[in-house]
Amino acid sequence: MTIPWNLADFDAHEDVHFFHDRSTGLRAIIAIHSTHLGPAAGGARYWRYAGDDEPLIDALRLSRGMSYKNAMAGLPMGGGKAVILRDDDGKGEARLEAFGRMIESLGGRYVTAEDVGMTDEDMRVIARRTRHVSGLPVAEGAAGGNPGPATALGVFLGLKAAVRYKLGRLDVEGVHVAIQGVGSVGAALARHLAAEGAVLTVADADEARAAGLAAELGCKSVPAREIMRVAADVFSPCALGAILDEQSIAELDAAVVAGAANNQLATPADGERLLSKGILYAPDYVINAGGIINVATEYLGQGDAESVRGKLAQIPERLTAIFEQSERRGLPTDRIADDMARRLIGRD
Amino acid sequence: MTIPWNLADFDAHEDVHFFHDRSTGLRAIIAIHSTHLGPAAGGARYWRYAGDDEPLIDALRLSRGMSYKNAMAGLPMGGGKAVILRDDDGKGEARLEAFGRMIESLGGRYVTAEDVGMTDEDMRVIARRTRHVSGLPVAEGAAGGNPGPATALGVFLGLKAAVRYKLGRLDVEGVHVAIQGVGSVGAALARHLAAEGAVLTVADADEARAAGLAAELGCKSVPAREIMRVAADVFSPCALGAILDEQSIAELDAAVVAGAANNQLATPADGERLLSKGILYAPDYVINAGGIINVATEYLGQGDAESVRGKLAQIPERLTAIFEQSERRGLPTDRIADDMARRLIGRD
Repeated sequence: MTIPWNLADFDAHEDVHFFHDRSTGLRAIIAIHSTHLGPAAGGARYWRYAGDDEPLIDALRLSRGMSYKNAMAGLPMGGGKAVILRDDDGKGEARLEAFGRMIESLGGRYVTAEDVGMTDEDMRVIARRTRHVSGLPVAEGAAGGNPGPATALGVFLGLKAAVRYKLGRLDVEGVHVAIQGVGSVGAALARHLAAEGAVLTVADADEARAAGLAAELGCKSVPAREIMRVAADVFSPCALGAILDEQSIAELDAAVVAGAANNQLATPADGERLLSKGILYAPDYVINAGGIINVATEYLGQGDAESVRGKLAQIPERLTAIFEQSERRGLPTDRIADDMARRLIGRD
Repeated sequence: MTIPWNLADFDAHEDVHFFHDRSTGLRAIIAIHSTHLGPAAGGARYWRYAGDDEPLIDALRLSRGMSYKNAMAGLPMGGGKAVILRDDDGKGEARLEAFGRMIESLGGRYVTAEDVGMTDEDMRVIARRTRHVSGLPVAEGAAGGNPGPATALGVFLGLKAAVRYKLGRLDVEGVHVAIQGVGSVGAALARHLAAEGAVLTVADADEARAAGLAAELGCKSVPAREIMRVAADVFSPCALGAILDEQSIAELDAAVVAGAANNQLATPADGERLLSKGILYAPDYVINAGGIINVATEYLGQGDAESVRGKLAQIPERLTAIFEQSERRGLPTDRIADDMARRLIGRD
């Protein structure tokens, strides 16, 4: 048997909580990686796991990711994550309320939000039993959700910082951006870019959606399978995770990767590959933090749309600092971002 | 890897919490078996464990034991237990305060107390960081501690109920009781018995202590190794645990076993052995609950010495119910007690 402490992913965690609600049979893990900067914030994932160890390892890995993301977003929040074990008994209201009681029992050390398998409506049911729910529309890892206009604006500002750093261009007029995925975030990003004169190529698994946006903006659309091979200045992944791997990086014909998708690198080695190929990668959790900044600001009661805008302006600054350190030290940007995040949460 | 849920001892638990205080390196597990009757109460054990799985298994086993004990004591408290991992860095004040913060983070779901390796003074340090500390002088499992006069009085009342049930005697005048261990509880029990005319034989690992008490009460003392073979009406174990095993039960020459020690049975099979031999066994955690009743009543702010006395009077009633069920169903008393406890905590 391995106790959580002995897992490679545990050592950095402050605490891990295993819950079992007897009346409904609901089982959940809440992992709290760090409360150094504030309450541990991170979504709740509802998932059917194959093995015994998967739920704990997933919770530990995602929890640490939230620590890094929230720290780099400049939020006064730590990182945590909840994993609810999906079984044949479903996700009824009694079970969601039980989950709410579990969160409440931690007295505010952990603040939940949506993640894969959870909905806005689920959050409302959970909120009957705990105050510690944030209104986050979609946290990291959620496919096709709507992280909102703030995410798109943050990615837009971050993309411009990358273009400035890599291509020496102070604006995006005439800069060619290939966007993978034009759901709400990708489409909003495309509109920001188009408004400032960028040249766009868009693609989506839903080809009609891509064509519709192309017609609206007067740009080109291509089949989804081709978007990563389009010759462009910037490749902007705004859909699936793990799309940057050995093969796709070999084929990639862009100077910059800057997009909204979560977990863009298939493995840490892919950060090295991008660096070797001279492609500037804007670390995903840094550039896509706009949605979290927006909702956390509301949750904390610390400001309005104006102050959110002020915080979004820190995304390009943070990215530029990462780019500079990466160049100076010859290390991948994702590695630099992790190092900076660890320093922010007092782990060095 | 085995996740706590998959351990045989987990399934009945509500939650299990793993804590790691980064600044001091302190690691602790808090297991909460049941809060059906109230906050989970149980001591904190400070111990150096040999294997990876031992601390969790120990916490789970002891936590369930506290659920049963508190339920059978009629207390509005559930059962829990904390295990603090002893290492080479000792148990300094910063670490005890960190443990206090861990308890406080559970918002009162768990109430701590002393157990093996912890002292009154440690509880005072812990209390700087949490309100959820009870003043229990010694919780279950502590060797040679002072569970106080209430434990002795409860055992005295319980012993008389066993004598009445087994021997048909309404008082203990002339009843021969062999007491193993005359520390504070055993000695106080001896004085209660002597005052009502019982015939006593006492023994202690500290022979001078046994001789001193024998002189005071005008009774006999024997070497510690002989006390379990003394021909008596009642054998009263008030020292070590696990003293009732295959060999000692074979040699036991008493009609009743009723004493204050914790975990008197070496294995569940020994409950069967006592039943087969026609020896009436007063389950340890039922008869020795006086100390917990006393302190919990103070902790809960629910009464004075008078109300404690009222609750102690339930010990003989509860034992008599156990004896009757044991006889009717032909099952060992310890098994009946566990069944009753499980019903009280809604687990049937």
